[in-house]
Amino acid sequence: MNFTVSKNKFYAALQNVAHAISPNSPLPVLKGIKINANEPDNLILTASNNDLAIQTSLSNEQDKDLNLTIEEGGAVVIDAKYLLDIVHKIDGDTLHMEIIDGALTMVKGQNAQYRINGMKADTYPTIDLSKPADAITTKADQLAEIIDETAFAASDQETRPVLTGVNFTLHDGVLECTATDSYRLAKKTIPFASDLTFRVTIPAKSLNEVKAIMLQEADKDIEIAQNTKKAQFSNGTVLLQTRLLDGGYPDTDRLIPREFHHTLTIRRSTLLSALDRCIFKSDNMTVNRLQCSQDDVIFSNGSQEIGDFQQSLMEEGTKFEGDPIDISFSGAYVQQAARALKGDTIEICFSGPMKPFILKDPANDTILQLALPVRTYN
Amino acid sequence: MNFTVSKNKFYAALQNVAHAISPNSPLPVLKGIKINANEPDNLILTASNNDLAIQTSLSNEQDKDLNLTIEEGGAVVIDAKYLLDIVHKIDGDTLHMEIIDGALTMVKGQNAQYRINGMKADTYPTIDLSKPADAITTKADQLAEIIDETAFAASDQETRPVLTGVNFTLHDGVLECTATDSYRLAKKTIPFASDLTFRVTIPAKSLNEVKAIMLQEADKDIEIAQNTKKAQFSNGTVLLQTRLLDGGYPDTDRLIPREFHHTLTIRRSTLLSALDRCIFKSDNMTVNRLQCSQDDVIFSNGSQEIGDFQQSLMEEGTKFEGDPIDISFSGAYVQQAARALKGDTIEICFSGPMKPFILKDPANDTILQLALPVRTYN
Repeated sequence: MNFTVSKNKFYAALQNVAHAISPNSPLPVLKGIKINANEPDNLILTASNNDLAIQTSLSNEQDKDLNLTIEEGGAVVIDAKYLLDIVHKIDGDTLHMEIIDGALTMVKGQNAQYRINGMKADTYPTIDLSKPADAITTKADQLAEIIDETAFAASDQETRPVLTGVNFTLHDGVLECTATDSYRLAKKTIPFASDLTFRVTIPAKSLNEVKAIMLQEADKDIEIAQNTKKAQFSNGTVLLQTRLLDGGYPDTDRLIPREFHHTLTIRRSTLLSALDRCIFKSDNMTVNRLQCSQDDVIFSNGSQEIGDFQQSLMEEGTKFEGDPIDISFSGAYVQQAARALKGDTIEICFSGPMKPFILKDPANDTILQLALPVRTYN
Repeated sequence: MNFTVSKNKFYAALQNVAHAISPNSPLPVLKGIKINANEPDNLILTASNNDLAIQTSLSNEQDKDLNLTIEEGGAVVIDAKYLLDIVHKIDGDTLHMEIIDGALTMVKGQNAQYRINGMKADTYPTIDLSKPADAITTKADQLAEIIDETAFAASDQETRPVLTGVNFTLHDGVLECTATDSYRLAKKTIPFASDLTFRVTIPAKSLNEVKAIMLQEADKDIEIAQNTKKAQFSNGTVLLQTRLLDGGYPDTDRLIPREFHHTLTIRRSTLLSALDRCIFKSDNMTVNRLQCSQDDVIFSNGSQEIGDFQQSLMEEGTKFEGDPIDISFSGAYVQQAARALKGDTIEICFSGPMKPFILKDPANDTILQLALPVRTYN
């Protein structure tokens, strides 16, 4: 292996694939990025962990500023941490990379030169990156919106693994994306022109990586191919493959209340700044209380030992309809839900003090956020 | 206690005194800031730990935008973490603070209102903030320069406590400020018009706090008063008192070599970027090697397991005089020393491969940086 390439282009590509590296991987070779140099002018970079694999392909044809010259093809695996550091810090605009002995690899800039002990490419596990047959295509900004609005609500506990993902269900031209950790739920429903039918649960972590590396250009087409084992996201240059979560995803529709007896309409900014002011935590959790009547809306929180906070939310833009209600909930959950709703106004619909309640943007019916109340002993 | 005050002014003053809080203080009252409201219009804020105390005084006379109104004098101590959070997050431009019962204190903004369990002011330890008789005055920018150039070289190990400070010695109109952790040394020597003679060692941590909170305005006078027990820094509004470090400070002059046989002149930027490129560490320490001759200056580092790096420093601005020398040293120490020298060019003067060497700015003879070589087995 022996090639020269634009330092900045190579660094950007390495940063993308490095998202698949688990720094604590028990298999040393998986801490590395596999570099394949294929004559005449194609570099393939691969990184993976148990859950996902990311591969990117670089060629002069795709990117005229790449300035790739391959003098000799070959492959090597180099620890991602060192490789990123080296390519970031080396001097000059172009770098030269060359295997000098076995897996000992030289990386040369203008005056600076590194030699790093790599790992032989044939020790890297074989990853099946074949493309599943069923594929849909969406725009990058639409997929980014789905991920923003749902992925945060997935569980971060491994007790029920299937809840650490976002469920994508496509049927009859409707795509439903649902995430829940069983204390709150986010659901995005959009019309989707496709004859396909599928129901897959994609790890939220993988979706966050998709967002971090593939969705910068709003208008770009993203292809999502999936079968019962895996899903593949591709934007033409970067391919991200993730395993799916096994196990039946719960039927969440029955959890969502359909009838509401109390509705609070409030500016999103009013709610978010009041939530931000709640600094008193008990047991690492901020429990907030909302006492709503048509005369006043009192938002409060407190801890016996430290102190308490209260604020009236009855200001311009606030309106409450229905009988008075007194309800307590986790501030962090409502804060994340309110952040995920992007409109100026939020509608919070209650069925009763111990029933799930929903938050929605009255101007956007594709997204629904649900939270459970918390029992308190006031 | 009952007063109203400008929220932003109050917050800035709290941030300053909070620098004296040790979050892990075993005495709960020392996690708090003591607020004294003195009629007619003076607030005094105090915070302290074992090593230092910071006090600031606020009055309408000193600051016309303070908008302080004291309806009732009094005092209370409030946990700094909560108080800063509350004052930062409360709404409105003015806040109202009032003891409502014992040490339960209300903090009120426009719509938001907090009640926090404070601590009674009489439980706060008495701190002697009387001013020592011997005082000198310096400009803020001069003191900032001294701290920047020396404090980093103090030890962070408590094995020899006196080395965790910067020694200030004033005699015969010369001020010498010295810091060393016994592996490297920084020494600032400036003429100082004063008849006083003293030799005190001030904790480097305290000096860094002085820099953080008192030296923003370059031209401001800073008074430093000291006796054998303590030093007090004052800029007119903030007073910082620090204990001194006991024990004789070592005589460092005999460590500084006076004769050199090899001199490397190099651009500061060339040296710093080469040091930044040294990424291979053994035992958490980056050992660098410099092989100098009149033909070439090779800078390198390496680790048997991971790899190695090398770069020629022989570029414009580099000049070596004397017989060839091959010397190894801690990259981090030389990096900090080179950063503390602000000129464009650095002169590194060597006496021999196992002798201390010094770094200096040829355009500024007030500051000298010394480092010890590291023995290697190449």
